[in-house]
Amino acid sequence: MNIVCLDLEGVLVPEIWIAFAEESGIPELKRTTRDEPDYDKLMHWRLGILKEHGLGLKEIQETISKIEPLEGAKAFLDKLRELTQVIIISDTFTQFAGPLMKKLGYPTIFCNSLEVAPDGEITGFKMRCENSKLTTVKALQSIGYDTIASGDSHNDLAMIQASKAGFLFRSTEQIKKDYPELPAFESYDDLLHAIQQAL
Amino acid sequence: MNIVCLDLEGVLVPEIWIAFAEESGIPELKRTTRDEPDYDKLMHWRLGILKEHGLGLKEIQETISKIEPLEGAKAFLDKLRELTQVIIISDTFTQFAGPLMKKLGYPTIFCNSLEVAPDGEITGFKMRCENSKLTTVKALQSIGYDTIASGDSHNDLAMIQASKAGFLFRSTEQIKKDYPELPAFESYDDLLHAIQQAL
Repeated sequence: MNIVCLDLEGVLVPEIWIAFAEESGIPELKRTTRDEPDYDKLMHWRLGILKEHGLGLKEIQETISKIEPLEGAKAFLDKLRELTQVIIISDTFTQFAGPLMKKLGYPTIFCNSLEVAPDGEITGFKMRCENSKLTTVKALQSIGYDTIASGDSHNDLAMIQASKAGFLFRSTEQIKKDYPELPAFESYDDLLHAIQQAL
Repeated sequence: MNIVCLDLEGVLVPEIWIAFAEESGIPELKRTTRDEPDYDKLMHWRLGILKEHGLGLKEIQETISKIEPLEGAKAFLDKLRELTQVIIISDTFTQFAGPLMKKLGYPTIFCNSLEVAPDGEITGFKMRCENSKLTTVKALQSIGYDTIASGDSHNDLAMIQASKAGFLFRSTEQIKKDYPELPAFESYDDLLHAIQQAL
């Protein structure tokens, strides 16, 4: 039996932190896992910048409420969910993902959670488990699933490589060059076709 | 972080085999996990009866296409999916569940698969893993989730007991009597309220 594991940001919705960097006018926040493979380091650095600017959960959620899924993402996901089981595995946080999941028709998402003070300051974050994408894919395999995975960034590589089939989607030139053995797609039609072949 | 694990038949949709027993006029097929705790024994017995009557996947799928979710089930599930992550963990088969998942708005379901001959005879079945409900709940716990579970039958008891909170839903008098420590509900409103309290 198969289950498809998809990254969220860059694959189904725009990068949330990039949208917030633009909205807030703080260009440093454009740094993502595409640029910084160490997620813990990246998140602590982001929280420092938020604190410095006096920004909290409310301001980020306001930006997120304006974000739409990438063009064609919902149709792709709808088709995929008709064919097989799908789980979005993301390093984002429940407090960010909620409104986006609504716009995508409530697919299942496995992500993390933020620690938020009563005044809205984001004081920390709780990762669901270590190496969450790989660990989750391994857990799904342990209960009888063959996984098929797709993502765009450094933190997706382990789940892609550990899966029966794995695909880069709208990744960076550098990642595509560094992992020439991984099929890389730019359109939802091509990704859907590749997943169908793997099912 | 929380995830709600729900049984399918008897909780969100009618018992598929009971519906098929009525449609086909074979009353023996009314036997379910409520009556026979050994699922493997139950399934082999069912496949024997199907073979005897010359019935296959096509005939069962025709019955399933006419089954509707239980009254209020979709609204309950929709509300729950707005609040938290939900996975249906069922001992049914992908070939049976598909049309029902469509009617429920494509929630994620973890179930099993049938082995079907080219002529439509169901020749066997492949269980995803042993003790699938408990094993799946344990796997979800291993990736950082607290589980909240609900079901109606013998095969739901282990996942209910292994969870942070667990509830019987529209269960038998015997099971309710044998497990007086498990809160038992009859309405979706009561079940939703109990889950909300546990979140």
